[in-house]
Amino acid sequence: MTEHQSPDVTPVAVIGLGLMGQALAGAFLGGGAPTTVWNRTASKGDALVAAGARRAGSAREAVEAVGPDGLVVLCLTDYDAVREVLEPLGGVLAGRVLVNLTSGTSAAAREVAELMARTGGAYLDGAIMATPDGIGADDAAVLVSGDPAAWDRYGATLRLLGGGTARIGADHGLAALYEMGVLGLMWGVLNGFLHGAALLGAAGVSAEAFAPVARHGIGTVAGWLTDYARRVDAGDHASPDATLETHLATMDHLVHESEALGVDAELPRFVRELARRAAAAGHGGDEYSVMADVFRGRVGAPS
Amino acid sequence: MTEHQSPDVTPVAVIGLGLMGQALAGAFLGGGAPTTVWNRTASKGDALVAAGARRAGSAREAVEAVGPDGLVVLCLTDYDAVREVLEPLGGVLAGRVLVNLTSGTSAAAREVAELMARTGGAYLDGAIMATPDGIGADDAAVLVSGDPAAWDRYGATLRLLGGGTARIGADHGLAALYEMGVLGLMWGVLNGFLHGAALLGAAGVSAEAFAPVARHGIGTVAGWLTDYARRVDAGDHASPDATLETHLATMDHLVHESEALGVDAELPRFVRELARRAAAAGHGGDEYSVMADVFRGRVGAPS
Repeated sequence: MTEHQSPDVTPVAVIGLGLMGQALAGAFLGGGAPTTVWNRTASKGDALVAAGARRAGSAREAVEAVGPDGLVVLCLTDYDAVREVLEPLGGVLAGRVLVNLTSGTSAAAREVAELMARTGGAYLDGAIMATPDGIGADDAAVLVSGDPAAWDRYGATLRLLGGGTARIGADHGLAALYEMGVLGLMWGVLNGFLHGAALLGAAGVSAEAFAPVARHGIGTVAGWLTDYARRVDAGDHASPDATLETHLATMDHLVHESEALGVDAELPRFVRELARRAAAAGHGGDEYSVMADVFRGRVGAPS
Repeated sequence: MTEHQSPDVTPVAVIGLGLMGQALAGAFLGGGAPTTVWNRTASKGDALVAAGARRAGSAREAVEAVGPDGLVVLCLTDYDAVREVLEPLGGVLAGRVLVNLTSGTSAAAREVAELMARTGGAYLDGAIMATPDGIGADDAAVLVSGDPAAWDRYGATLRLLGGGTARIGADHGLAALYEMGVLGLMWGVLNGFLHGAALLGAAGVSAEAFAPVARHGIGTVAGWLTDYARRVDAGDHASPDATLETHLATMDHLVHESEALGVDAELPRFVRELARRAAAAGHGGDEYSVMADVFRGRVGAPS
């Protein structure tokens, strides 16, 4: 494996070997990084050890194994697990760089940054924009925020996780915030698709027939986001392609269609209620992008 | 214009010249179809007339102008406007094919199909999967449902509206149902993006910085839809990539993050409530695709 190793690739300790942790360790290994793994249930590391990883007997041993130039990567279930792993380590992390890829809030990420600062280590927080089977691909990305010097030192190693891996800023909370934004979008897409599939299913159309049409629609809407973003940043939602009132009229159709077919109408009713609030506050003639101001509480806050 | 006319392209009457109707008429004209236009406010047809369209003095005159081989296209604000236009026409529509591209429910589309059947005409209902400025492009699509013989006769003319234009079935209500599904998805994407933009905006990140990350995330999730569709059709949500419980844990993060940043938490709370319902009904270990069963009312109906 080491034949492809770039001089910039460093040893890595991967702590936490769920599906994602295993994928991360596999990508480091595949990229030629000497990789040490640890997981509470040791057997989750078996395949990685067979592929050339070194198995540590504890988190502390994993950190020590990769030496002072090694990167320590955490990928755990939640921040309670992160604290459980980190607190006993204490001084072992002094002078080290920790990258935490565990999902959580920006506040939780900043707490770990403070903990690392107290121990004399550096911290990068990361958000993984890929499923485990996509890790390592050109279109996979890990968004990293935090210490610039740590990124300079370990960016090449972290890029083994995905071609789009990039540092987005110094604020340790940024990666978590971007992840939250993308997750909200993910549920928006999934609920939209699954509600549509339920609606079409009630009329005898398969979800498989709907999927390509749905993907086409998603692609069309994704193309609007640059213009929407510009409007949100400028706070200017005038001269719309379609007014909020036009959206509201078609929202009525979706509610009625759902009711008529015996499909849950709560989701479209909720979406309509949000839009009605903006219309009631005088934004009926604006572009739908004005909903960002509703979410910011600047427009039509509930009384 | 007629130099590019395909022998399959027929004369067209376009009734209703809002932004979308103007785009439709422009695409017909550009494709070499002799095009007659009518709109209640006549001035909306001025640019089209300058480009070679014929202006009719009434909807009846527009239908008569294109002759027995002509296609009649409606694109109006809503179905009230459709009825207002169609009812006085009566026998003029006998033997004619009407394509209605007005947004509405499947029930409204089927009513127009019955009206056309009573007058001895044929009916196609269409859903436009494009914005006005995308009409005529290769990736624009009009989904058409209804009479197969009418599609055979006018499919080539309708394909001038977009390269993806296709007939999806004989049931006149299908196009409206697909449109409803895609619209629900559209609001899911838009609300997800705008909520994420609000969240990041509260931390000083511009929506323009979020947009490319959001688009990347949307592309990743769109890639899951084929698998999700297969699961929905099979009613099999076992062996998940990520369990509903995992989703619920990160939904908590999004709710907390929103609250902490003073951004509306109603949307993520609502999304979490839907997922909690499925988990409470015993589907916490299933793939998120099980939410289609929630929307169908098969799982965890509200008491």
